[in-house]
Amino acid sequence: MKKNNKIAVGIDIGGTNTMLGIVDLSGSFLYENSFMTAGFGHLDDYIDCLGKLVEEGIKALGKGYEIEGIGIGAPNGNIYKGTVEFAPNMPWEGVLPIVKKLGKIRKEKIVLANDADAAAIGEMIYGGAKGMRDFVVTTLGTGLGSGFVANGTLITGHDGFAGELGHVIVDPFGRVCGCGRNGCLERYVSANGLKSTVCELLSETKAKSALSSVVNDGLTAPMITEAARKGDKIALKAFEYTGEIFGRKLADVVAITGPEAIFITGGLAGAGDLLLIPTIKHMENNLMNVFKNKVKILLSSLGGNAGVLGAAALVWKNAQVGDH
Amino acid sequence: MKKNNKIAVGIDIGGTNTMLGIVDLSGSFLYENSFMTAGFGHLDDYIDCLGKLVEEGIKALGKGYEIEGIGIGAPNGNIYKGTVEFAPNMPWEGVLPIVKKLGKIRKEKIVLANDADAAAIGEMIYGGAKGMRDFVVTTLGTGLGSGFVANGTLITGHDGFAGELGHVIVDPFGRVCGCGRNGCLERYVSANGLKSTVCELLSETKAKSALSSVVNDGLTAPMITEAARKGDKIALKAFEYTGEIFGRKLADVVAITGPEAIFITGGLAGAGDLLLIPTIKHMENNLMNVFKNKVKILLSSLGGNAGVLGAAALVWKNAQVGDH
Repeated sequence: MKKNNKIAVGIDIGGTNTMLGIVDLSGSFLYENSFMTAGFGHLDDYIDCLGKLVEEGIKALGKGYEIEGIGIGAPNGNIYKGTVEFAPNMPWEGVLPIVKKLGKIRKEKIVLANDADAAAIGEMIYGGAKGMRDFVVTTLGTGLGSGFVANGTLITGHDGFAGELGHVIVDPFGRVCGCGRNGCLERYVSANGLKSTVCELLSETKAKSALSSVVNDGLTAPMITEAARKGDKIALKAFEYTGEIFGRKLADVVAITGPEAIFITGGLAGAGDLLLIPTIKHMENNLMNVFKNKVKILLSSLGGNAGVLGAAALVWKNAQVGDH
Repeated sequence: MKKNNKIAVGIDIGGTNTMLGIVDLSGSFLYENSFMTAGFGHLDDYIDCLGKLVEEGIKALGKGYEIEGIGIGAPNGNIYKGTVEFAPNMPWEGVLPIVKKLGKIRKEKIVLANDADAAAIGEMIYGGAKGMRDFVVTTLGTGLGSGFVANGTLITGHDGFAGELGHVIVDPFGRVCGCGRNGCLERYVSANGLKSTVCELLSETKAKSALSSVVNDGLTAPMITEAARKGDKIALKAFEYTGEIFGRKLADVVAITGPEAIFITGGLAGAGDLLLIPTIKHMENNLMNVFKNKVKILLSSLGGNAGVLGAAALVWKNAQVGDH
């Protein structure tokens, strides 16, 4: 068996969909599939389906491959325990022992991590962070996730819950957050945060905006992005505000961990320069002199595959995610 | 030669004094000395004196010891370059190539790091962080320094300047900081920060305080501590305010790096519970649920020896400070 026939199974568990891919060391997809996470009553049935899909994928490849393991990225995933814990958007409540349950039907090594941590490892193995030893990945979707790498190793923290940049406080009297506190960063810098900002701006202004005719619930980040691209002032102001808050907090992040680069991935990364330009401007304005014009803010190059690639990367990078 | 005869030279360079110690693996001092940093016109003369003192110390010990190396902790020390860069309180300006210059007169391995990073390594080797893999050390003196350890390794960052917790922003329109920006944490949480808070409180109140008779320049943190211990309301309020700001920012730190413990050292640590109690209260109030009642806030047990022990520890822990 050749060494370059090594493959890894990557599973990206989201609240809505579960994506599965089998990839090689270069990041090429040999197999892809997906199904709805929410379509199962009991967790055991979900795990059963997941196991079968892994089996299907491996069968479809045929012989001649060496399976290194199964990597799983999931919201609120705990790398030390192999669990998903109290994830607000998952169909099941409490502590979900995903690795233990999947391990009963699959013999391969299984590694589970927080989805943003998986994204960080994915960026290191397959993306723009190749060769970097100190960087941060932020995932801007419904919320804001983050994975920190220092000295080439993921910062998992004492309990496996490090990297919650989305929950540093912007304003202790600010917007209510799903975590039960007020003013968390993800309530400002995320797809949902951007929507809240637009709603606030619309309520404060008499200016015309293409977005004022949309009911709140129907408003989406892509709509705001499109409006901003057409020059809508409210939409542009919302991106400026988002970038200001993000930039300020990234300056704090730089002071603490001194990264070479900060990557942005997730749905809101699709806004590109609309988000990047104000974020970079406000970060630079707030950096200590010693860090100015040194830290790169980059969009992830992995796009929609980041979740599965990140999960698969956990298998290759198992030794680099800390040993507690 | 016995293995337990290994010794390290620790040098703690401060803006005012330079302390030197020769210590063994257990942290016992075999030799101690100090001299004024500011007593030299040219850096070369200072380095010359430093080299001679190292020579003196080693001679004083006699034979039978194996010198592992020389560790140096210094403000704005850069571990990758062996330099002290733009340290506002040092007698010399710009970039000071300490390791290069000392290396010309001493043949031992020399490691130089930021003083707060050295304190973190010292805490890991000799202090309360023994056996911990994820922790933070904060040094509260004139300013606020910090050293972060994740996965058992110091976070030095891409350029060697990570760990500047003293310069995360509390209030972008707040107190002017020596770094050229406004509202940095160290302007609130440090001996000087505490003094500023007392001055602000005195200007706002008509209440009597033992501190109102002290001219601003003469006010010291120990005076404020003493007044607080006697029940002075302004002094107590100043500690409460300091703890509130510190606690909030430590909650952010926990969200990012998820440490097992946060140590407090430096002059202001002498205030003990006056500082600890409000800091813990406000940190806990601002922590995400997943971190509540888990993170220890501890005073360093190394006391006044922390600087030299931390510097010496750099020698033993050389492999644990990242390799860039």
